[in-house]
Amino acid sequence: MKPLAPSSIRAPFARYSHGIELPAGQRLAFCSGQLGIAADGTIPEGAREQADLCFSNIAAILGEAGMTLKDIVRINAYVTDRAHMKGYMDSRDAHVGSPPPASTLVIVSGFTLPEFKVEIEVVAAAPEKRRKPVRSKSAPQF
Amino acid sequence: MKPLAPSSIRAPFARYSHGIELPAGQRLAFCSGQLGIAADGTIPEGAREQADLCFSNIAAILGEAGMTLKDIVRINAYVTDRAHMKGYMDSRDAHVGSPPPASTLVIVSGFTLPEFKVEIEVVAAAPEKRRKPVRSKSAPQF
Amino acid sequence: MKPLAPSSIRAPFARYSHGIELPAGQRLAFCSGQLGIAADGTIPEGAREQADLCFSNIAAILGEAGMTLKDIVRINAYVTDRAHMKGYMDSRDAHVGSPPPASTLVIVSGFTLPEFKVEIEVVAAAPEKRRKPVRSKSAPQF
Repeated sequence: MKPLAPSSIRAPFARYSHGIELPAGQRLAFCSGQLGIAADGTIPEGAREQADLCFSNIAAILGEAGMTLKDIVRINAYVTDRAHMKGYMDSRDAHVGSPPPASTLVIVSGFTLPEFKVEIEVVAAAPEKRRKPVRSKSAPQF
Repeated sequence: MKPLAPSSIRAPFARYSHGIELPAGQRLAFCSGQLGIAADGTIPEGAREQADLCFSNIAAILGEAGMTLKDIVRINAYVTDRAHMKGYMDSRDAHVGSPPPASTLVIVSGFTLPEFKVEIEVVAAAPEKRRKPVRSKSAPQF
Repeated sequence: MKPLAPSSIRAPFARYSHGIELPAGQRLAFCSGQLGIAADGTIPEGAREQADLCFSNIAAILGEAGMTLKDIVRINAYVTDRAHMKGYMDSRDAHVGSPPPASTLVIVSGFTLPEFKVEIEVVAAAPEKRRKPVRSKSAPQF
């Protein structure tokens, strides 16, 4: 995973890479957009707390593929108001690896429930050989 | 194509997978967002009917790559109002394979024409060897 | 990179392909959504000028991976008003290769700054062997 950082254009506004190049022959993980809901159905009010839950969910999903948040190639994030961007970005900066993934952030009108302020979707990649699930509780896949 | 279903997080709200893992070496098909317009230019009024047309169009596009709706890895769907979600989701549930693909659904402000209520975009994948077009009318590609 | 163009469905509204098929074994470049901001921080007012800057930025990013705008597989574009679609589409038509990439266009509520009218995100691909950076100023990567 190689960051694409041309010196000729304005540097990223925040902690993300302008682009990420993947070599051929990687496994890919496409995740569903995650919302800020806990396993017990609780939905925290703040955008930061919702985003933290999204990344926690994403880590669990990627773990099933033997990947971690460090393997994220691109994040597509959606918030329902510009006021929620800071909470989302603080959470993203706390969760992504280095170099950070590519990232797109847009303001939309809403999600499946009105309580949700942020939705986070990722694509991740890893070499074919590293397949052992990351979660210690998980049984080996093969 | 392997569904990623961690037991530690809340189960999907509906018929989609939290994540899909693709092994290395797959062909990929990236589709344009499809809108609910028929070959003759007709645009049905309902979200369900529009979504059905989107999936019908997607099936035709994927067929050119020797793929079907069952090969969809992730769906990104956009609706213009929360009221249109049910129609979209009913259509999705009727069209996707098992395990279902990853899925992201957001409410946006609109599409190229005001009549459109839903737009559906997919990524699909299939092994390199299965290349014969799925549509029976299609000439073999090579 | 093969365009997927089923004759059974309505032809694309504009200069894009309904789908693009990638063979296995390609390198992939995932770019962050680009906004219409110049290296000096200037943000032009018009959607066309902003979109031109986006494509210029994308060309620089892809160049770091030895790719050009002709290697774009799919464009995801977001505008803040239907009135900005023409400016975006004119820019896209002027910048994409032939066959054109897949494309999705939706209207959203906004981006990181209120001045921005369009955001453009791409995925591109190229064979493993073609790795020499495209920008003449760039040092060879290896």
